[in-house]
Amino acid sequence: MELVEQKKAFGGMLEVFDHQSETCHCVMRFAVFTPQQAKTSKVPVIWYLSGLTCNWSNVMEKSGIMRLAAEHGFMVIAPDTSPRGDDVANDDGYDLGQGAGFYINATQAPWAKHFHMETYIAEELPALIKKEFANADLERQGITGHSMGGHGALTLHLKNPGRYKSVSAFAPIVAPSKVPWGEKAFSAYIGEDRTDWLKHDACALVTATPSDVPILIDQGTADNFLEEQLQTHLFDEACDAGGQKVEINMREGYDHSYYFIATFLPDHFEWHAKALKD
Amino acid sequence: MELVEQKKAFGGMLEVFDHQSETCHCVMRFAVFTPQQAKTSKVPVIWYLSGLTCNWSNVMEKSGIMRLAAEHGFMVIAPDTSPRGDDVANDDGYDLGQGAGFYINATQAPWAKHFHMETYIAEELPALIKKEFANADLERQGITGHSMGGHGALTLHLKNPGRYKSVSAFAPIVAPSKVPWGEKAFSAYIGEDRTDWLKHDACALVTATPSDVPILIDQGTADNFLEEQLQTHLFDEACDAGGQKVEINMREGYDHSYYFIATFLPDHFEWHAKALKD
Repeated sequence: MELVEQKKAFGGMLEVFDHQSETCHCVMRFAVFTPQQAKTSKVPVIWYLSGLTCNWSNVMEKSGIMRLAAEHGFMVIAPDTSPRGDDVANDDGYDLGQGAGFYINATQAPWAKHFHMETYIAEELPALIKKEFANADLERQGITGHSMGGHGALTLHLKNPGRYKSVSAFAPIVAPSKVPWGEKAFSAYIGEDRTDWLKHDACALVTATPSDVPILIDQGTADNFLEEQLQTHLFDEACDAGGQKVEINMREGYDHSYYFIATFLPDHFEWHAKALKD
Repeated sequence: MELVEQKKAFGGMLEVFDHQSETCHCVMRFAVFTPQQAKTSKVPVIWYLSGLTCNWSNVMEKSGIMRLAAEHGFMVIAPDTSPRGDDVANDDGYDLGQGAGFYINATQAPWAKHFHMETYIAEELPALIKKEFANADLERQGITGHSMGGHGALTLHLKNPGRYKSVSAFAPIVAPSKVPWGEKAFSAYIGEDRTDWLKHDACALVTATPSDVPILIDQGTADNFLEEQLQTHLFDEACDAGGQKVEINMREGYDHSYYFIATFLPDHFEWHAKALKD
């Protein structure tokens, strides 16, 4: 693990690391904010999964997340959104390839060599964190994310019962098997068999195998992607069908940007704190 | 005034405008955050002057300033750091020309045509705000800034007694007439006569004409520019000599970045609130 950036912030420390990923077969970069509280005790861990085109920096720079993490005494981990590099397959679109890993394991060429974001986020990176950060309390993990990262947070939570004690999402892709972003990514990464797609579709998962952890979602009504790509109402219906507890807040006039996330992130930290503290 | 961007945030509205500046003879862009409170009453105004290379977006995206403005009920105005455009003079360096207006009025070619940031910030833009934002209370203005913008905040305050009811700065250039950034900019913009430089040097101004408004400064000890360009101790000495009340906080381990600003901006808002709220 190589330290590439280190910045003091809010009494804690933001650190950015490169490491050789065995899962993704390339160097992966991620950021960790360690709050002051971790100097003296174990602290809960919040995973923040970013949206299309983003990397660790968007959330750390623009969301106010470190201020909240410092207040609550949470470690925050912000992974990248895909493998990257000259040797890694890519696509001209912003919604496929580098920056668009969709938090699944690709099985199709040319993606299958590097694009294993599900195993990377759920297995490899937690093991690395456990090894390198003695005071990261992996018994108290929460997960959240934005857009494609909201899809990642919801699906990783539903696929790994008991792993995350709290879960929330901002403007998540909830039904990737039914919307253009998901159709493009899933057909490329895992092929044309749509029954496979349902294993990575939050709506399908939550109806089939709901969680006993309540889910929080915030969604802006002025989000340009709401109607075509996000369709939040489908998740409401799927939770109803599966008996999943969910709180969905439609936020009048807010869009898809980090201004929206920054506005409502304090509520999400309160939500995670209820489950992760004590 | 043309609206180029509008984003709901923290219950208020971020708006970015272009306007034809009579002072700078070009189109100038600035951002205004209007808090919810302005719907029903007049609100104090905070001017935030940015540092080298920045424009309105750095502070609005990275500092958490809108959250604080929403909490306190302050309007925030973030002007650009210089005139810009294909017709505007420029320099290859990041510290002269576009993005580096230094909040003074240039008298030397080729800068004298457009680079009138002092009059722009102190006269033209306030007049525009008064005309366009009925609930901006210009009887209650505060000013702050970062680095070159800290120099701007301190000098504009000291040159315009009574104008700003509160003033603070992050990692300000306090003695531009003695450091490389200032020497380069002042010699280009206003010529080689160093006695002219002192009219725009916070240390010289505060010794000669101190203000009855106390000044707050935060400065990181791990700031790479501290020793050569900032030399905060000179301002401490100049305030002593002039009898100026000042609070200078040296922040252990913090650098020159927006992580530093975001960490201590809440304290600055408390400082301004003491003076601007009734």
